Amino acid sequence: MPEQPADGRHRVVIERVSPEIDCGRFAIKRVVGETVTVEADVFADGHDQIACQTLFWRGNEKPQSSPMEALGNDRWRGQFAVSELGRYQYTIEGWIDSFQTWRDALEKRIAAAQNVEIDLLIGAGLIDAAAARATGADAELLRKTAQQIRQLKDQASGPPVALREELLALMKKYPDLSFASRYDKQLDVIVDREKARFSAWYEIFPRSCSPQAGRHGTFRDCEATLPYIASMGFDVVYLPPIHPIGRTFRKGKNNSTEVQPDDVGSPWAIGSLEGGHKSIHPQLGTLEDFKHFRAKAEELGLEVALDIAFQCSPDHPYARDHKDWFRARPDGTIQYAENPPKKYQDIYPLDFESAAWKSLWEELKDVFFFWINQGVRIFRVDNPHTKPFAFWEWLIGDIKEKHPDVLFLAEAFTRPHVMYRLAKLGFSESYTYFTWRTSKQELTEYFTELTQQNVHEYFRPNLWPNTPDILSDFLQAGGRPAFMVRLILAATLGANYGIYGPAFELCENVPQARGSEEYLNSEKYELKHRDLNSPASLKDLISKVNHIRRDNLALQSNRNLRFHDTDNPDLICFSKATDDFSNVVLVVINLDSFHTQTGWVQLDLSSIGLDGKHAFRVDDMLGGGKYLWHGPRNYVELTPERLPAHILQVRRWVRSERNFDYYL
Amino acid sequence: MPEQPADGRHRVVIERVSPEIDCGRFAIKRVVGETVTVEADVFADGHDQIACQTLFWRGNEKPQSSPMEALGNDRWRGQFAVSELGRYQYTIEGWIDSFQTWRDALEKRIAAAQNVEIDLLIGAGLIDAAAARATGADAELLRKTAQQIRQLKDQASGPPVALREELLALMKKYPDLSFASRYDKQLDVIVDREKARFSAWYEIFPRSCSPQAGRHGTFRDCEATLPYIASMGFDVVYLPPIHPIGRTFRKGKNNSTEVQPDDVGSPWAIGSLEGGHKSIHPQLGTLEDFKHFRAKAEELGLEVALDIAFQCSPDHPYARDHKDWFRARPDGTIQYAENPPKKYQDIYPLDFESAAWKSLWEELKDVFFFWINQGVRIFRVDNPHTKPFAFWEWLIGDIKEKHPDVLFLAEAFTRPHVMYRLAKLGFSESYTYFTWRTSKQELTEYFTELTQQNVHEYFRPNLWPNTPDILSDFLQAGGRPAFMVRLILAATLGANYGIYGPAFELCENVPQARGSEEYLNSEKYELKHRDLNSPASLKDLISKVNHIRRDNLALQSNRNLRFHDTDNPDLICFSKATDDFSNVVLVVINLDSFHTQTGWVQLDLSSIGLDGKHAFRVDDMLGGGKYLWHGPRNYVELTPERLPAHILQVRRWVRSERNFDYYL
Repeated sequence: MPEQPADGRHRVVIERVSPEIDCGRFAIKRVVGETVTVEADVFADGHDQIACQTLFWRGNEKPQSSPMEALGNDRWRGQFAVSELGRYQYTIEGWIDSFQTWRDALEKRIAAAQNVEIDLLIGAGLIDAAAARATGADAELLRKTAQQIRQLKDQASGPPVALREELLALMKKYPDLSFASRYDKQLDVIVDREKARFSAWYEIFPRSCSPQAGRHGTFRDCEATLPYIASMGFDVVYLPPIHPIGRTFRKGKNNSTEVQPDDVGSPWAIGSLEGGHKSIHPQLGTLEDFKHFRAKAEELGLEVALDIAFQCSPDHPYARDHKDWFRARPDGTIQYAENPPKKYQDIYPLDFESAAWKSLWEELKDVFFFWINQGVRIFRVDNPHTKPFAFWEWLIGDIKEKHPDVLFLAEAFTRPHVMYRLAKLGFSESYTYFTWRTSKQELTEYFTELTQQNVHEYFRPNLWPNTPDILSDFLQAGGRPAFMVRLILAATLGANYGIYGPAFELCENVPQARGSEEYLNSEKYELKHRDLNSPASLKDLISKVNHIRRDNLALQSNRNLRFHDTDNPDLICFSKATDDFSNVVLVVINLDSFHTQTGWVQLDLSSIGLDGKHAFRVDDMLGGGKYLWHGPRNYVELTPERLPAHILQVRRWVRSERNFDYYL
Repeated sequence: MPEQPADGRHRVVIERVSPEIDCGRFAIKRVVGETVTVEADVFADGHDQIACQTLFWRGNEKPQSSPMEALGNDRWRGQFAVSELGRYQYTIEGWIDSFQTWRDALEKRIAAAQNVEIDLLIGAGLIDAAAARATGADAELLRKTAQQIRQLKDQASGPPVALREELLALMKKYPDLSFASRYDKQLDVIVDREKARFSAWYEIFPRSCSPQAGRHGTFRDCEATLPYIASMGFDVVYLPPIHPIGRTFRKGKNNSTEVQPDDVGSPWAIGSLEGGHKSIHPQLGTLEDFKHFRAKAEELGLEVALDIAFQCSPDHPYARDHKDWFRARPDGTIQYAENPPKKYQDIYPLDFESAAWKSLWEELKDVFFFWINQGVRIFRVDNPHTKPFAFWEWLIGDIKEKHPDVLFLAEAFTRPHVMYRLAKLGFSESYTYFTWRTSKQELTEYFTELTQQNVHEYFRPNLWPNTPDILSDFLQAGGRPAFMVRLILAATLGANYGIYGPAFELCENVPQARGSEEYLNSEKYELKHRDLNSPASLKDLISKVNHIRRDNLALQSNRNLRFHDTDNPDLICFSKATDDFSNVVLVVINLDSFHTQTGWVQLDLSSIGLDGKHAFRVDDMLGGGKYLWHGPRNYVELTPERLPAHILQVRRWVRSERNFDYYL
C-alpha cells in the first residue's frame, strides 16, 4: 500500500526542468564566467500564487539562491553565474506565496468595496509569521507593521499600509518555506576554463620539424617552429603520440607491411624496449626536452596538447609485464587488432573485458597523471569510442576532480549516439562530422543540431578541415580555394577548430589512391620536410582569420549561431552575435571552390539586432571592403581564387545626442 | 574521488527509452490486451555486435523477456502485451553478442580466403560456454557442436558447421548475460479495463426523473429512465452528487442567494444533518434504493459512475466534528470558498494545509472505499485540481492497488500542465478543452497534441459537448445542427465521450445571460421535467452514432487518429484505422451549423491503408449512401439541418481468387 508522504502539505510541483541531460544522469557544461539559465514548469493545485527560485552551490558549500520569473503558462526562468572552475550543482525550489495571494485578493475586495476587517487581520497574521523568520530591523519593522494593520480597523487607513510596495518587498525576503517543494534531482554543471569554449588548434609532427631533410626532428627542432605557429594566431599546439614506437610488425611508408630499416613507423604504434605511454621516443629527445618545449610554447601563448592513444605495439612493456590486460588467442598469442578481414598485427588492443580490468583502469589513469605532472593540461584522446563508456566516465571524473583545468578532446569519428555519449560522460570537446559536411544544406542541418538543440549543453564541437587520417574529397578536388573555404568555415562556424599543419596551409591534397582519404606519403609513416615560406601558403589568411576570431567576442561561442537564407545554394550565410548585440559578425561563404558565385542574402534582421528601419554598415574584416546595406536583402559576389568569403562586422547606425550620425 | 564501478565490464549503455514519462516518475497507461512498444538507443563501445531485450513483469513475478529489433542508428524496438489488470513494470537489458560478432567476422575471413583454424577454436570456446548455460538436449547439442568444430581442422569442413543457422538460433537462446547492462530505471504501466479507453457517458440528475412535474425524482424514477439511456447506446450513467444537500446559504434558482422554501439546492453543496459524503440524499431514496438502481443499470449494460466532490456545505457533519480539517478565520468562523471578490458562503473548502492533513486524507479515501463497497467502480472527481497532487497520487495509488478495476475521471478545466499532471499521477480519464475547440484549426491542433505526442501515453481524453456548467457558445448559437455537429465530433474524435442529458438530446440552448455559459433555469438548482419523446430529440441520431462506435473497432481508440486536408475551412476530415487496416473509418464534418458546405478532401491514402492505384468504396454508416472514390481527392457536400457529417467505412477493392471483384 502506498505510504502517505512525510508531509502532504508540499503542494508545489516542479516538472520539465531545463537544462537537464538524460534525467540529470549527466552534467551540462559551461566555462568560467558564463551563466546557466534554468527553466521549469512550476505550479500548484488551486489558485494560490506561487514563487520559486534556483538553488546552486559548489561541493559542500551552502546553496545560494536566485529568484525565478514567470514566463506564462506555468513556465518559470532563473539564472546563475558560474565563476569558478569545477563542479556546480543546481536545483529548483517552489512554494505557495501566501502573502502575494492574500494581497491580490485584498486589492480585488477593495475594488469591490467589501468589508476587509477580517482580511486585514489575516494579513497581519502572515506578516507576524514573516517577522518570526526575519531578524534585526526587518523583524522589528514587520512586527510593527502587523500591529499597525491590526489597530487600523477602518476601511480607509488599513489597506494603504497593507498594500505598501515596501512591505511586499520585505515579505518576499522572508518567504514561508515550511511547505516548499524541492525538485527531486540535483543537476550538475562542469565548469571549464575558457579554452574549452574558444581555441584554435594546430597539429604538428615534431619529427618533421628538422631543418635538415631526412633527419629525424626533435623537440628542440619543433621549438623553433613554435613562433611560426604562434604568429598564425593558434593557441593550442597538439602533438601526435610522443612515445617510443614499436618495431615488431612496424609499418613502412604509406602503411606498407614491407618495412625498410630506416622507416620511422607510426607514432600510434606505441611501446618499445625504450618504454610505453609514460616514456618519450628517444629520437624526439628526453623528458627534459619535452618540458622545455612545453615551457617555450607557454611563453608564446601556446598550450601543448598530447595525444593519448590506448593501444600497444607488440613491443610495449605492458605486453610483456601485463599479459592479463590483453586477450589471449587459443594458440597462446596475444590478440592483435582487427577489422575482419583486415588485420593490424602491429597493434594489440587492450582487453577491457579482462578479469584484471581494475588494475588496467588504474594504470591508464596513471598515464594521464604522469603527463599532468609534466604540466600538460589538454589531452586529445585517440578512439575513445573503442574503450568502455564507464571507464572514461570514471577516469575523467577523477582527473577533473583533482585538476578541473584539464581538458579532453574526444577523437571519435563514429555514430552520433556514441559521439554524444562520450561528450555527456565528460569529454570537454569533440571532433565532429564537419570534415564531411560540405553543402549548404548539410552544414545548416548539422550545425543547427549542434548549436540550437539540447546537444549544445554538453557537446562542444571542435572543427577540423583535415587530420593526418582525413584528406577530404573537397580538399582533394578544390585546390587552394577549397582550403580557404574550409578554413573559414571551421574558424567561424566553430569557436573551437583546428588544422593539421603544415599540410593544411601548404594545401597538400594528393591522396594515396583515388577514393582514399589517406594522404599520399602520409606523415604518419615517414618524415616530411617542407618549405613553410612557400608563396602558396595560406599562413597569412590563417593569421588574419585567427586574429578576427580573437577580436570578435561573437565568434568565441556557438550557441549564438544563426543561419540566414540565400538564393544561391553555393552561398552560405550565417551570423554570430553577443547577447547584447555589441558585437555582430556576419559570414558569407562561396562553397563552390571553382566558380564565382553571386546572389542575394535574406537576413533575419532581428537575430542580428537590427530593426530594418535604418541602413547599416558591414565591414569586411577579411577583404577590407565596407558596404552600406539596407534591409534584409543584400547582394554578394564571391570569387574563390581571390577570397571565397566575407567576414563582416555589422555596425548599427546610431543617432547621437549631438545629432551626428555614426555607426556603432 | 569517483569509485570504480562494481564491475567495469558492462559495456552496453541504454538511453532515450520510450515510452517514459518524466524520467519514469509516472506510469504509462494501457488497457487489458493492448501492447506496449518500447524503444531505446542501445549501443556499446567498439565494433562488437550487441543484442537487447525488453523485460516486463507484474508485482513480484519473475520477469519475462521479449527480444528487441534494431531499427538502425542504434535504435532498438521491442514489445510486450499486457493481459491482466493492475501494474506492470518494464525495463531493458542489453549485452555484447560475442557469438554474432565472431560469426560475422568468420564470414568475412572466409570470403577473404584467410586461414580460420584459430578462429574456429575461439568459436568452439564460445559454444562451450553457451553449453554451460544451457540444459538438457540443448546443452548436449552445443557441446557436441563445439567438439565437432574443434576436430574439423581443415578450412573446408569447419566453417559450414560453425555457420549453421540452427547453431546461431541455439546460441541466441543462451546469451552470455554476465556483463549485460540493465537500464537504470524500472518503468510502470497501469493496465485498466477496456472501458478506460472506450466508453460513452450519459450524465443525468436523478431528481429530474420524476414522471410528475414538480415532484422530486428518486432512484426508482431514474431506474425507469435507464432503458431509454441504454437504448441510445451509452454504457456509463453518471450521477451528480447523491448526498444530502446543505440548507445554510443554500442557493435558489439560477444560483440566486435568495432562496425559496421549496428550492432543492445544488447537489454539490454536500452535507446536512442527514449526513455527508457517505450518505444518500433522503429525497432520492435509501442506500438500498441506490444499490437496486446500480444493479438494474448493470442488467442493461450500464455502469453507474458517481461524482466525488470534496467540499462541504456549512451543515456537513465534518464542519461540526472535524473543524481542524477547515481553515479558521480570525473571528473563529470557518473560511468559506472564495474567488475574490466573489464569495461562496454555501461551500466550505477542505484545508489541505491543515495540521490534521493525515486524518483528512484517510477520511477522504474512505469515502471512495464506501462507494466501492456499494459496487461503484467509476468516479468522476469534481475539481481535483484544487486539492494537492500528492493527495491524489496517494489515494488513487492505494485504491487501484486494491481495486485495479476502479476508474477515475478528472473534472479539471484548468491550465494544461495541471490537467496533464493529474493524468500522470493516476487519473484514468480527463475532461478536455474540446468543449471550446470549434474551428478546424483548433480541433486539429488540439487533437494532434492529445493523440500524436507523448501525452497519449498517460492522458485519456473524455469529450463532452456540454455539461451542467457549460453550455458553449457554439451550442447556444447553432441550434439543433450545432448539437449534431458537436455530438458527432465528440463521438468520433474521442473514444471516450459523454453528454449531459436530456438537456443535450433535447437541444436545450438558452443561457442564463448573454455571454454566460450557464444554462437558464439550470438543473443544478431546480428540478426539471422533460418530454424525452419530443420530435426534436436527437436520440435516434445518438443511438445510431453509438452503434457505429460499437461496430467499428477503429473508433475505439485515439492513437490512430489522422487528419486529412480539405480545401474548405468549414469541412474537417479525419480517420481512424485499426493497425491492420481491417477497419477504417473516415469522418467528414461540416463545422458550419448554418450553411451547406461543399469541398474536396485530400486523403493521405497510406494512412488509411490504400495504395492509390485502385478505386475504393466508402459507405456512409450515418446517412446510408455508398460512394465509389478514386485517389486522394474526393468531393463532399454536407447540409447541416439534414446531416452535417459522413461517417464512412472505407472498403478496399480486392480481387478474389475466383476472379470476382469485391470490397473488403
